[in-house]
Amino acid sequence: MTMASRRGFLAGSAGVLGTAAALRPAPAEVLEPATEPFHGPHQAGIITRQQAHTYFAVFDLTAETREEVRALLQRWTDAADRLCAGAPADPADSDEALGMPPAHLTLTFGFGPGLFIKDAKDRYGLAAQRPAALVDLPVFTGDQLQPGRTGGDLSVQACADDPQTAFHAVRQLSRLAYGTAQLRWAQSGFVPALVGQTPRNLLGFKDGSNNPDRADAATMNAIVWAGDEGPAWMRGGSYMVARRIRIALEHWDRTPVSFQEQTVGRSKISGAPIGGKAEHDPENLAATDSDGNPIIEENAHVRLASAASSGARILRRGYSYNDGLNFTTERWPPWRQGMEYDSGLLFVAYQKDPRTGFVKMFERMAKFDMLNQFTTHTGGGIFACPPGIEKGQNVGQGLLF
Amino acid sequence: MTMASRRGFLAGSAGVLGTAAALRPAPAEVLEPATEPFHGPHQAGIITRQQAHTYFAVFDLTAETREEVRALLQRWTDAADRLCAGAPADPADSDEALGMPPAHLTLTFGFGPGLFIKDAKDRYGLAAQRPAALVDLPVFTGDQLQPGRTGGDLSVQACADDPQTAFHAVRQLSRLAYGTAQLRWAQSGFVPALVGQTPRNLLGFKDGSNNPDRADAATMNAIVWAGDEGPAWMRGGSYMVARRIRIALEHWDRTPVSFQEQTVGRSKISGAPIGGKAEHDPENLAATDSDGNPIIEENAHVRLASAASSGARILRRGYSYNDGLNFTTERWPPWRQGMEYDSGLLFVAYQKDPRTGFVKMFERMAKFDMLNQFTTHTGGGIFACPPGIEKGQNVGQGLLF
Repeated sequence: MTMASRRGFLAGSAGVLGTAAALRPAPAEVLEPATEPFHGPHQAGIITRQQAHTYFAVFDLTAETREEVRALLQRWTDAADRLCAGAPADPADSDEALGMPPAHLTLTFGFGPGLFIKDAKDRYGLAAQRPAALVDLPVFTGDQLQPGRTGGDLSVQACADDPQTAFHAVRQLSRLAYGTAQLRWAQSGFVPALVGQTPRNLLGFKDGSNNPDRADAATMNAIVWAGDEGPAWMRGGSYMVARRIRIALEHWDRTPVSFQEQTVGRSKISGAPIGGKAEHDPENLAATDSDGNPIIEENAHVRLASAASSGARILRRGYSYNDGLNFTTERWPPWRQGMEYDSGLLFVAYQKDPRTGFVKMFERMAKFDMLNQFTTHTGGGIFACPPGIEKGQNVGQGLLF
Repeated sequence: MTMASRRGFLAGSAGVLGTAAALRPAPAEVLEPATEPFHGPHQAGIITRQQAHTYFAVFDLTAETREEVRALLQRWTDAADRLCAGAPADPADSDEALGMPPAHLTLTFGFGPGLFIKDAKDRYGLAAQRPAALVDLPVFTGDQLQPGRTGGDLSVQACADDPQTAFHAVRQLSRLAYGTAQLRWAQSGFVPALVGQTPRNLLGFKDGSNNPDRADAATMNAIVWAGDEGPAWMRGGSYMVARRIRIALEHWDRTPVSFQEQTVGRSKISGAPIGGKAEHDPENLAATDSDGNPIIEENAHVRLASAASSGARILRRGYSYNDGLNFTTERWPPWRQGMEYDSGLLFVAYQKDPRTGFVKMFERMAKFDMLNQFTTHTGGGIFACPPGIEKGQNVGQGLLF
């Protein structure tokens, strides 16, 4: 008996969904739908409510022809449609998500600069289609990017309420890419699954208080979604910048809270900007104390990140990560030798144009942010995430189809 | 205003709990208590319902005196009591768990061989107290243990429904150990949060179908809990073996399911042992096909792991892990160069005596298990987890207090 028939896998999606539904109990689905729609004007996973887990994966294309890339994106589109509905990707699915609810899985695809041009070669005849906004990221002050964690031709941001669901999805896509693309780097991450409050990051501070309102379509059009200013195939898409940022938690945890608060520019417990009372109070960047010094430090993180100061706005959708420990030797007293946390933030930001978004904001932060004492950027990338598609279309519709 | 007073932290535990309750909304606690008791005859986190996330951490003791070790265990006991109740560890808590429910946090402490003797030195006058069951693990066939992921003097298995809660707890303990012990290795892990069904591991197979019944006290006394056969200070404790096992998922995912099933000895979809119909059917190790060959292969994983075959029983409480990718070059066709998943299983097993438990079972498996084609043991350790304590006692009561 073949695996396919044992699984009861049918070619039509109704058959797939029927099988999947029969295989799994669905207590959570009684309360709310456990799936996010795969089709729509925008890709899911950008302004979607942030799920608790991510597996972010970047691939290098080894394909020699444009036709191979097209075929890969067709396979990925078909599989992603089924996976986001909670069904197996195909008959060769690895099955570790069987019996699990769909967990609001989203798969957000992105195109790195290498799809358009790599080592000065226009491998797939797409160089002329590269959006101006898909810049090569500049080298920022303090960058410690490791090649094996940086760049890449295709990105897949899998997000779900369960880490196994997110990883499962990328494993299927990776298998379907065999011979055409191979994994370059990957990072799992998490945020606390809390409703109605801003989650705290690993610094212990509320993170995201100032994020633009995802429910406000005009704001999203102004900040997140690409419009007519670039190529038509990107209209309704968004540009994503990812950065893997190690945080020296072993130092942070032995730093007085008063200094932590000066560094961030917010109160640790309430999340209020310094000088304010509540989390969502506006940052008063002009306020000074009785000596005339600014109450929010000149180099405080919130000041440099603020739209008022940087002139840039982005939608952040990052995840904390925790990869165990690294061995380290310190260059300063007490010259400690030992383990440091390999833990921190997978920073993810979406924007209409990185040149007026992340790049503009971070060029100054990389030089001056007090938080840099505790952070090291060890990897990342930039990706053009195309718009959403309708049933029958493929990821990259308008560019490759 | 000091941090302590801003936090409203009070020395008495009633005060701490009162503050914590005021700080966090508790919708989940209405349905069920979100805490696991820290005190009791056994440590929590062994037969406790398995939470979805772990952060497993191992420390090296740098303390020079027994008194320092005692003081550390006192600090850890106090902090663990508060953390498991959902409160901050102390006034210097790093706060990233503020506002989060206690998430059934458990902290399970263990003593490695190095607490008793290290480099042939009896650092703390405890060598005579070392239980015979706390053996140095033998070198198993195929071991690829990395020193930086192996061994250690003290272990803390933090388990919780949320990864941030588990990591938060270990961070506080690590800070409280500064100058006395330092982190040696750590591993985060996850299992699907499913109720009423056996979760699948990253192989896509149901994992734990054969685990002994944690609710059956007689079975737990027979398999898990140390009794009168060893030192009195371990009575009611348990011996834990951890192994970090990388799984070559990139190969597994391109292996036919029929071969996967022969390798494991179970059906992938149903979880039934080969020849059986349902997940919990007994393994029929004697059954043969019409040619006289055993229907469960001689070297199938379930056969070698079964109590009937190995004569050993353990309580498994492992977690899948996912640390991104490693660069690899293959020694066999098609001589692929590229990334492999740094992902697999943090195997954790509890038993009354590892000599008749894990060691007995795994010596044969390490040589013959068909699954070894896909697995590499890269680290691990053995730890004596002392019994539970009452209020007013400390972890290691009977040994150090």
